[in-house]
Amino acid sequence: MIIEMQKGATEKDIRQVVKRVKENGFDIQMNQGKEKTIVAVLGSGTESIETQIFEVLPGVEKVIRIMKPYKLASRDFEKENTIVEVGNVKIGGNAVVIMAGPCSVESKEQIISCAKIGKSLGAKILRGGAFKPRTSPFAFQGLKEEGLKLLAKAKEETGLLIITEIVAPEDVPLVAEYSDILQIGTRNMQNYRLLEAAGKSGKPVLLKRGFSATLEEWLTAADYLLRENNPNVILCERGIRTFSNSTRFTLDLGIVPVVKKYTHLPIIVDPSHAAGHWEYVPSLSKAAIAAGADGILIEIHPQPKKALSDGPQSLTFSDFSRLMAELKLLAKAVGREI
Amino acid sequence: MIIEMQKGATEKDIRQVVKRVKENGFDIQMNQGKEKTIVAVLGSGTESIETQIFEVLPGVEKVIRIMKPYKLASRDFEKENTIVEVGNVKIGGNAVVIMAGPCSVESKEQIISCAKIGKSLGAKILRGGAFKPRTSPFAFQGLKEEGLKLLAKAKEETGLLIITEIVAPEDVPLVAEYSDILQIGTRNMQNYRLLEAAGKSGKPVLLKRGFSATLEEWLTAADYLLRENNPNVILCERGIRTFSNSTRFTLDLGIVPVVKKYTHLPIIVDPSHAAGHWEYVPSLSKAAIAAGADGILIEIHPQPKKALSDGPQSLTFSDFSRLMAELKLLAKAVGREI
Amino acid sequence: MIIEMQKGATEKDIRQVVKRVKENGFDIQMNQGKEKTIVAVLGSGTESIETQIFEVLPGVEKVIRIMKPYKLASRDFEKENTIVEVGNVKIGGNAVVIMAGPCSVESKEQIISCAKIGKSLGAKILRGGAFKPRTSPFAFQGLKEEGLKLLAKAKEETGLLIITEIVAPEDVPLVAEYSDILQIGTRNMQNYRLLEAAGKSGKPVLLKRGFSATLEEWLTAADYLLRENNPNVILCERGIRTFSNSTRFTLDLGIVPVVKKYTHLPIIVDPSHAAGHWEYVPSLSKAAIAAGADGILIEIHPQPKKALSDGPQSLTFSDFSRLMAELKLLAKAVGREI
Amino acid sequence: MIIEMQKGATEKDIRQVVKRVKENGFDIQMNQGKEKTIVAVLGSGTESIETQIFEVLPGVEKVIRIMKPYKLASRDFEKENTIVEVGNVKIGGNAVVIMAGPCSVESKEQIISCAKIGKSLGAKILRGGAFKPRTSPFAFQGLKEEGLKLLAKAKEETGLLIITEIVAPEDVPLVAEYSDILQIGTRNMQNYRLLEAAGKSGKPVLLKRGFSATLEEWLTAADYLLRENNPNVILCERGIRTFSNSTRFTLDLGIVPVVKKYTHLPIIVDPSHAAGHWEYVPSLSKAAIAAGADGILIEIHPQPKKALSDGPQSLTFSDFSRLMAELKLLAKAVGREI
Repeated sequence: MIIEMQKGATEKDIRQVVKRVKENGFDIQMNQGKEKTIVAVLGSGTESIETQIFEVLPGVEKVIRIMKPYKLASRDFEKENTIVEVGNVKIGGNAVVIMAGPCSVESKEQIISCAKIGKSLGAKILRGGAFKPRTSPFAFQGLKEEGLKLLAKAKEETGLLIITEIVAPEDVPLVAEYSDILQIGTRNMQNYRLLEAAGKSGKPVLLKRGFSATLEEWLTAADYLLRENNPNVILCERGIRTFSNSTRFTLDLGIVPVVKKYTHLPIIVDPSHAAGHWEYVPSLSKAAIAAGADGILIEIHPQPKKALSDGPQSLTFSDFSRLMAELKLLAKAVGREI
Repeated sequence: MIIEMQKGATEKDIRQVVKRVKENGFDIQMNQGKEKTIVAVLGSGTESIETQIFEVLPGVEKVIRIMKPYKLASRDFEKENTIVEVGNVKIGGNAVVIMAGPCSVESKEQIISCAKIGKSLGAKILRGGAFKPRTSPFAFQGLKEEGLKLLAKAKEETGLLIITEIVAPEDVPLVAEYSDILQIGTRNMQNYRLLEAAGKSGKPVLLKRGFSATLEEWLTAADYLLRENNPNVILCERGIRTFSNSTRFTLDLGIVPVVKKYTHLPIIVDPSHAAGHWEYVPSLSKAAIAAGADGILIEIHPQPKKALSDGPQSLTFSDFSRLMAELKLLAKAVGREI
Repeated sequence: MIIEMQKGATEKDIRQVVKRVKENGFDIQMNQGKEKTIVAVLGSGTESIETQIFEVLPGVEKVIRIMKPYKLASRDFEKENTIVEVGNVKIGGNAVVIMAGPCSVESKEQIISCAKIGKSLGAKILRGGAFKPRTSPFAFQGLKEEGLKLLAKAKEETGLLIITEIVAPEDVPLVAEYSDILQIGTRNMQNYRLLEAAGKSGKPVLLKRGFSATLEEWLTAADYLLRENNPNVILCERGIRTFSNSTRFTLDLGIVPVVKKYTHLPIIVDPSHAAGHWEYVPSLSKAAIAAGADGILIEIHPQPKKALSDGPQSLTFSDFSRLMAELKLLAKAVGREI
Repeated sequence: MIIEMQKGATEKDIRQVVKRVKENGFDIQMNQGKEKTIVAVLGSGTESIETQIFEVLPGVEKVIRIMKPYKLASRDFEKENTIVEVGNVKIGGNAVVIMAGPCSVESKEQIISCAKIGKSLGAKILRGGAFKPRTSPFAFQGLKEEGLKLLAKAKEETGLLIITEIVAPEDVPLVAEYSDILQIGTRNMQNYRLLEAAGKSGKPVLLKRGFSATLEEWLTAADYLLRENNPNVILCERGIRTFSNSTRFTLDLGIVPVVKKYTHLPIIVDPSHAAGHWEYVPSLSKAAIAAGADGILIEIHPQPKKALSDGPQSLTFSDFSRLMAELKLLAKAVGREI
């Protein structure tokens, strides 16, 4: 349930609304926009109370029931597009943001060469996994803190911002020290304790869609982040699991305009994990930007064949360089820039 | 199995190869390219004969086993991209071909207005269903021959070429009289008698991917068309069935570069059936072209709310006009034109 | 829309209802039950007429809108379970009906040995394909009429009834001459001309679920058969296409109780095509009967390794014999018999 | 890689093998069976070392490469069925084990009435969630420790063993104090830190299949538990996500015989979450046992309509009582007992 206050509503009006909500056993979350304040009434059982008990209060414009399971991620709660600002980079604005780097941080040389090529071609953010959630317990699990330090070095040398994955709540403080954006991977989209910890960190969070998550489940997971009063949530489509086996996952680009319609959050696309093979990455990168994505998250590697993880889907530097040139033209053709 | 003849192979060499193939109980299909002739050895059981019995013949360059179930649609059989020429339109060449029109032909006024707007904006082909395969036997089934006549009238007035669906082998002669391209719908992708009849008609055929077909099943269905010595086959991706319910089907744009890799046939994308809602059609149209599609097949209607079928996913003329302007810029940015 | 007549409604009452329906531009289909007559009002646009125009007529008990797309297959139209009687076999009654035989009829020896083992173990119906819809045009397509004649011979020798597949409308008269039940395969579930031809034949029809069909699409396809005044429709679940690759298709046994709830038609399960591997067939056969299926359709072969199609999923005679013993115990435990 | 020792291999032989494995940078896990010792060689890169370096050692019978990603869960590592013993209950033996109870523990009265009815009908284990992973942060999250205490009370009164879910590593010690089996839910199947904590607890763990997990991903997740030297792992199939919407998830009973073939672990089926509706639960419960499951995990509630979660899929006590009678007959018919 959403309580929209009138333009001229006073602080006293708002306090009274909040009081009434709490008396009824619910929580609130407030969105104080330029023009209006919107109060979300949260908790189980909101569907069974009358809207009237709030409508009669002074300063209330209208009361709307949100039938969707997600509340804070909904356009009903926030009409304006959220623009996530990280350092001097704006995600969700007119510029298309390129986040590039290797799947895993493997060595100083590897990560710094990725950062340099990214920097020189117009990428703004360096990706690289230090804590890796691997399907098998016997596979390479990442360099952990050493990896984070190498990311920091790459940032120092190039000025690129850092995005890296967190896999457990207890790692959040450490990772948040080094990383500008916390990434929550597809397998952890519904790891609620992790969402809570990431939300509480205050850092921007990139939330990958679970590979079998519906839009509603994804945005409801975003609500776990948003209710920690952390507005800096970035969505990331990375391919869904279907019967089709011609690519590793099926990139669901139709979700891009749907996300733009129902939520105020920016959306990034990861073409690399969907494709599973470098040859298909350029097509999907271009398609993502044409579909309206606010950026792409792409895997590159100085020597893909020697990568410790995800080599087959990583672009070489020369392929990446060719792609970036194409993406710049394309972004311009759809009224954006890189 | 593919027998690649040497550049200088004589007709006699080829005849001898054909003879040997037939003696072994197999069929052949020949691809006489500019430089080389390729002979496909067809039939069940090719996997169990020795390649040697053909390798020893004069004029034979090499013999390759094709492990994929599709043979004639494979790049191994034809290395050059197939360009389907229909009237003065080339599908699969540098130009991106726009096919637009209503889901069903409903009236003279409706189809002619669609044709005129399409013509004025740069569409080359008019779509419109006269025979409709409807899920329920109690739903509108199309105007049938009267619909075909209205399509002919629209062609006469605008010069646009016609594409319309066939749903049964016995209708092929009638439809082929009026239509420049025969469309085989998603539900009929594995209606083999229909494929045979369409193949035999000699007309170009647009083969929609079954909504749960793998790449292999789709290209093997194309083989049914190609083995009737009809090289003019156009593939069309139109969305696959998945768990995701935010769009009607999930448009699988990742298949575009995969198709380009494994087959020589052109590929068109239908964003309308995938989206299921007109608001998402522009995003997906742009994404399709950016991904490398050779054209799009799009639903438009003078008054979508009054359409007898698929109204919700049809664009109004003004939305279509805006989209065409965007697509022209986009096509240029990816080195193509509309 | 369904018009339920009163118990004592006269023929004149019914005629008047029919007249009123036709005046409004709709078709009717009547279900004259023991107690009551039910009239289905069919055609596009039934949702926009008032129920009142029928409610006021003499003899009308009530008028119900059917919101589901399927009408004649619905329990609203027919409350009693349909029992399809073929010869002396009842499908949908208390007995669980076993239909067994090879994927394709290959030789006299093969089909007769299958019939004999089936007969001796309690199977009532012999399956065997004569016209095969094969994914590749270069694969074995069935013995066609010769196959039908071999089935007839097997019937003569054992008394088993015959079920075989039809793949095109023009084959229906020929196949109907030899076969007791016409089978429509998964790829043809929405081949509407074929459904019409099968419906018109008057023969019982087994309608396999399309491997990506929802319940609604499946039952709406059944409506195509039922509206030809052919009440003898048998549903068959044979596995759906999902991401899971541990079996060839995922057998959706949850559909069994759902079918029992929403439709009056009997349901058979085909464990062989779902499993894709003979080792998993016994488990799935038992599960199907425990779930409430009215029968199973199972592939057996005297020498599975030499089968021309579907060898890997066919049971040997000794495995089949062991399974039948288990199924008899199981059927008894769930209050049925074989 | 698996090293199978000879029957008469000495401790010294084994120590030497272990030493050689570690010298090569790998970990080991040992399975000391009655007849033979099997040593699993674990770590990334095992595929690139020669088997010969172990084959030459004294006491080694043979060295096998395991091509599957799961190692410890594989039948190659343990040929005998694992029987998990919890108190006096054996899971994976001849008896089919019934685990029943409410979705969430809501009150003393509720959980004790469930325990009593379960006990009286032959259930051995009481289920009930205290920590609930809910899609929305605003939904009821469980009674937490209070819920655990109520479960303990129910155990005290009836003697039933307890199974309850864990959702975060930090909760494991607390939950392990009260619960006989730790349940890992479908959303947490790949929450690797949670798997590690559960494995280390030494408690039996029931690992639900992720609703989009392949067999390989599921068994590889089991490897995370097994490598903590915790052999008491129970698998649980609970329905997968597919396009089909007639049940909440599609219960994949075909996985039951597949699991029996490729792994030594017992498998339980949860028909309630798959069905999503109580009317379909009896069919699926019976099907699960007929398919070969070692038990079922089923939701019951004294007043399903008032349940705080999952009411629609919970059985009333009278429906549960009827079902248990049916299951006992069925179990007997497949050579098992309840």
